[in-house]
Amino acid sequence: MITVSVLGSGNVAQHLVAALGASEKVKLVEVYSRNIPAFIIPETVSHTTSLRSLLPADLYIIAISDSAVADVSSRLPFKDCLVVHTSGSLPYSVINPCNRRGVFYPLQTFSRNKAVDLKSVPLCLETEFETDYDLLSTVASAITGQIHKIGHQQRKALHVAAVFVNNFANHLYVQAAKICEQHDISFDILKPLILETADKVLTLPPVEAQTGPAVRNDSNTLQAHIDLITDPTQTDIYQLLTKAIQEHGKKL
Amino acid sequence: MITVSVLGSGNVAQHLVAALGASEKVKLVEVYSRNIPAFIIPETVSHTTSLRSLLPADLYIIAISDSAVADVSSRLPFKDCLVVHTSGSLPYSVINPCNRRGVFYPLQTFSRNKAVDLKSVPLCLETEFETDYDLLSTVASAITGQIHKIGHQQRKALHVAAVFVNNFANHLYVQAAKICEQHDISFDILKPLILETADKVLTLPPVEAQTGPAVRNDSNTLQAHIDLITDPTQTDIYQLLTKAIQEHGKKL
Repeated sequence: MITVSVLGSGNVAQHLVAALGASEKVKLVEVYSRNIPAFIIPETVSHTTSLRSLLPADLYIIAISDSAVADVSSRLPFKDCLVVHTSGSLPYSVINPCNRRGVFYPLQTFSRNKAVDLKSVPLCLETEFETDYDLLSTVASAITGQIHKIGHQQRKALHVAAVFVNNFANHLYVQAAKICEQHDISFDILKPLILETADKVLTLPPVEAQTGPAVRNDSNTLQAHIDLITDPTQTDIYQLLTKAIQEHGKKL
Repeated sequence: MITVSVLGSGNVAQHLVAALGASEKVKLVEVYSRNIPAFIIPETVSHTTSLRSLLPADLYIIAISDSAVADVSSRLPFKDCLVVHTSGSLPYSVINPCNRRGVFYPLQTFSRNKAVDLKSVPLCLETEFETDYDLLSTVASAITGQIHKIGHQQRKALHVAAVFVNNFANHLYVQAAKICEQHDISFDILKPLILETADKVLTLPPVEAQTGPAVRNDSNTLQAHIDLITDPTQTDIYQLLTKAIQEHGKKL
């Protein structure tokens, strides 16, 4: 059975450890982190705080912040092993070249307090050597049905797109929650709309799902909204995204 | 049994007709629209293209564009009847005052080609006269379990918040789809992330759900993304929302 170790103690490491630890297709051997992680490591899995004492494994997954990947990879006490990172942005070449390198990028948002079913999470894979792809793909198949072979340029673009649909969309929720709070309205009222907005683009192209005053060029409502907003950041967002919706409409 | 008529042929009218037509709590009497609507009207329900020949009903729901509500309401051939509109922005006072007025605002996004289960859609109600609230609330309860008594100021604020979480979030999906297209990536890969982003804020406050390079102040990734983006509108959106996430972080 393929053996895997996970290096890291953050949100991505936590979710990978849970999924790999529960899989019967691969064996999670060890978790490395500088400190004892806040999440639960299965009893059958070792934990080490020393890179030098890492157990042998077929695959090492470095699931740590982008800025630390190069350093940790250069301190691995072995060579010619398969070492991958989980970053959407970095090329595999940041990993020390004394090992065989690759990428194992889960396209999902992970927070400590929210369980995610990895089965539907796309994993974007890349390997330095074609001969390593099968092994990486087998490990990926232990946790998800959605595996994509994606090189660095496409992965970087996908990461930018992910920032738009996740980080930025979530910030719109943050601003909406502020508006609700300011007007003594429960944010709960917006939840069905938030869910339907996402659900809609599972079946409709986003451009067909667009509704609202901007796409209708309903200038009375747009002005009424601008008049109601008191927060300058909200005004900037409102004006920019309204203009973007209207310009996109014109180009079609 | 309470009798209801719907005036309109757009997306909101379509969904209200389907829900009210299927309800056993109220009787949908008639649908008015200038032209034959593109959606199906139940066989037991009349259709008219003449406001002057409207059948009697306990409640008339005007589900048409904001700019036409005042005019249509002023051409109704009766007085002292309960007449409501479905707008998030307008006060009930745009309705001609010869009738008893109110608002029946479904907080949801409706498109012709996407069915919506109204059972989970919040309905925001307001009536000019307190004595009409029970009737409006009974009709609302025929289609949803989520009924909120909300006045004009709060409803306007809610509508702005809805623009953020729906119209603007959807536009972010539009931009992400463009990025995918430009880099020959299937938009499908983003769908699990889109759904999880929405799902997350059902249980976590949005501010706790925030992840990504902006909130981490990961300047290398932020710069790499700006370098990758070639569309000026995407650059503007990226910079503004990144700044907003970072400023919001500082205020906490």
